[in-house]
Amino acid sequence: MKKTISGFSRLSKAEKVAWVAEQFFQGPEQAAEELKGFWHQNEEVQRVLDGFSENTISNYYLPFGVAPNFLINGRAYAVPMAIEESSVVAAASSAAKYWMSRGGFKAEVLSTRKLGHVHFIWEGDVQKLQRHFQELEARLRHDAAHLTANMEQRGGGVLDIRLRDMSQLEPYYYQLEVHFETCDSMGANFINSVLEEFSSTLQIFVQEHPAFEGAERQLEAIMAILSNYTPECIVRASVECPVEALAIGPDDPMSPEEFVRKFTKAVRIAQIDPYRATTHNKGIFNGVDAVVLATGNDFRAIEACGHTYAARDGQYRSLSHCTAENGIFRFWLDLPLALGTVGGLTRLHPIARRSLEMLGNPSAPELMGIIAATGLAQNFAALRSLVTTGIQKGHMKMHLMNILNHLAATEQEAREAVGYFSDKAVSFTAVREFLALARREVRVKGKG
Amino acid sequence: MKKTISGFSRLSKAEKVAWVAEQFFQGPEQAAEELKGFWHQNEEVQRVLDGFSENTISNYYLPFGVAPNFLINGRAYAVPMAIEESSVVAAASSAAKYWMSRGGFKAEVLSTRKLGHVHFIWEGDVQKLQRHFQELEARLRHDAAHLTANMEQRGGGVLDIRLRDMSQLEPYYYQLEVHFETCDSMGANFINSVLEEFSSTLQIFVQEHPAFEGAERQLEAIMAILSNYTPECIVRASVECPVEALAIGPDDPMSPEEFVRKFTKAVRIAQIDPYRATTHNKGIFNGVDAVVLATGNDFRAIEACGHTYAARDGQYRSLSHCTAENGIFRFWLDLPLALGTVGGLTRLHPIARRSLEMLGNPSAPELMGIIAATGLAQNFAALRSLVTTGIQKGHMKMHLMNILNHLAATEQEAREAVGYFSDKAVSFTAVREFLALARREVRVKGKG
Repeated sequence: MKKTISGFSRLSKAEKVAWVAEQFFQGPEQAAEELKGFWHQNEEVQRVLDGFSENTISNYYLPFGVAPNFLINGRAYAVPMAIEESSVVAAASSAAKYWMSRGGFKAEVLSTRKLGHVHFIWEGDVQKLQRHFQELEARLRHDAAHLTANMEQRGGGVLDIRLRDMSQLEPYYYQLEVHFETCDSMGANFINSVLEEFSSTLQIFVQEHPAFEGAERQLEAIMAILSNYTPECIVRASVECPVEALAIGPDDPMSPEEFVRKFTKAVRIAQIDPYRATTHNKGIFNGVDAVVLATGNDFRAIEACGHTYAARDGQYRSLSHCTAENGIFRFWLDLPLALGTVGGLTRLHPIARRSLEMLGNPSAPELMGIIAATGLAQNFAALRSLVTTGIQKGHMKMHLMNILNHLAATEQEAREAVGYFSDKAVSFTAVREFLALARREVRVKGKG
Repeated sequence: MKKTISGFSRLSKAEKVAWVAEQFFQGPEQAAEELKGFWHQNEEVQRVLDGFSENTISNYYLPFGVAPNFLINGRAYAVPMAIEESSVVAAASSAAKYWMSRGGFKAEVLSTRKLGHVHFIWEGDVQKLQRHFQELEARLRHDAAHLTANMEQRGGGVLDIRLRDMSQLEPYYYQLEVHFETCDSMGANFINSVLEEFSSTLQIFVQEHPAFEGAERQLEAIMAILSNYTPECIVRASVECPVEALAIGPDDPMSPEEFVRKFTKAVRIAQIDPYRATTHNKGIFNGVDAVVLATGNDFRAIEACGHTYAARDGQYRSLSHCTAENGIFRFWLDLPLALGTVGGLTRLHPIARRSLEMLGNPSAPELMGIIAATGLAQNFAALRSLVTTGIQKGHMKMHLMNILNHLAATEQEAREAVGYFSDKAVSFTAVREFLALARREVRVKGKG
């Protein structure tokens, strides 16, 4: 079939680029050149990057920026952020500076427990299994000792092993639920390796133990895998100050009291309406993911966990909370964050390594605090915009500048465009037309 | 205060790099050089990238790879993926090829409706507002005509405007709920601009309309903003084939019937257990986000929407579904996806533009199908690994190769390491120690 291929992964990188360019691009040579233009100049560095994934033909560049002036638990950080969306880094920086003069952020890790499961189907007598569970647990720990020894030396390992009876939901379905402490690593590989070993031990246990007989000796392990839902690996970030300290200056269009009233209302709305909660939390993750990415962590894991947590009581709700009581404004965020500062890509990706150095090579709990504070700052900035000027003013200006950049507008043209579009909808087509017209006029004048 | 700064955003890029390097790095010069090493060689291109965000000092590189052989609705695609996690592109490619010979993927857009709200507090008589709603709607549409004209020409615009009474949840709280069609654009800027205009018109309407009097003339708009929760902007991707066609070959360790039984059980478990559902859906988003990123779309919006949707019935559940009835295996995914193929960064980011060209410059609905199919492929590959060999075998090999790469292992050393670690836990420390030992032995032998 046209445009399909066998053995693509075995082609060299140059051959991959050539095949893709030839099959899918109007100008294959130009396309190949542009893709290669995004390779790192240092071949060694590029080889490391290519090793992270498969079938690589280039790199996708995310702007890597810095939000300085984050005061968290009394220490000043410049937070590295990898993000392609405009206004996010600016908003984080602005909120960080605002709170720096109001006591900064507090961050407190509430717990760091991670989870994984062996999911299995077993038609045996569960009470019998419970009776011999201590014996099973000893066997599980013994058989996985070669995997856990290193983690135990670092202060982590397997905390708890529990039997969860799920058979009321699905016939004969049970879980080994395993609780882990993985110290400064995210721990996915460690957890999965231990669980796969547990899965094998569990099957052997019911096969060999004299307590079980007949069909009981057959236990079908469906899968053994960590859970990305870790509600007990969680951090709280908060800010607080007297309401009157929220004033910005004499030109403030809104009194602190009015601001607080609208702000708390906005948070309340995100608590009760899932349509708003989704967008509200999306804004939090704008900040969170940018740091997660920058530090070589896995944003899909962080997102999945955070959103499941937001829906834990049966309705999807805001992750942040706000009160204004006795003249004190308080705004906080509880966020489950399973991440690492060693292992995975954290030290392998050159920019991730630099990000961690920029943060003072934090422990995983310290990084949890930094990331939650960035999420809270983002949320504060977004809500502040929404309840005061609206967000479009800033957004559209940024978007306009991007398009002008792309169309190689001169400074003079950019100035004129900003004036022209101050009360009009910005779109690529509209800006191109504006520039075309402006340039034609210039040419006509030039001839006149 | 040390390590804080005023006016950072106004520094030149070189000055920003210098300040960050000086304040936060052990070797400032080397750090600055490494950060600059990730700049694009072409200054113009780099200027465009810097324009997307703020306070940029470098670029974060995500490996940009290709998963070929995706047959979707009878058409062959090579899918561009930007992702830093190992095995994801390999798994997508493998599942794509597997299904190519079994009829490929079907994708069907179920609807493309987007949403936004003006959230307001109003102490007036809501029945009065309802009675005059037609008049209000005409006024809203009239006042926003300068913003909607262009979108209407493209076949989109404002579909519906509704009044949602939320006052049973929060006193005096109402919404204008606005439904949009935004064609091939994600539409965030369009929607937000229209909503801010609506917000202003709404306030003027109750102020000026003779039906309202006294306190009714005061309407407080809390915020006007799109919703990232778009359950009616949704696509279904599916695969199906006879159960016996799932056989891989004569060496298959599992019969198709056993595979299907375990596979459907794994999907069922993700339906009933949120701990598993989170991880299950995370795997779907591994595929989804990689394409979302590659095509210049916003993965935070896609993630927030998808996970809220997964929790819509009060419990967080699997986004994919599976049946095996009358000898037919069927596996599908319903995924809300609000994205664009024009507007935003889609045509501004050079690699996003190339991604879209690689996909044949699809419409937004076509891209929804491609992305959902990639998510489904990812989920299929993950579940297939989980219920057969387990995922660690592949994962740990990849991780080991990354570490060996990083430590500049020779081919000979890498071969030995693969043998050595075939039954041991892979960690950075363990691999470094293994290499150190191997290298010492080589030196000793060399001297002997």
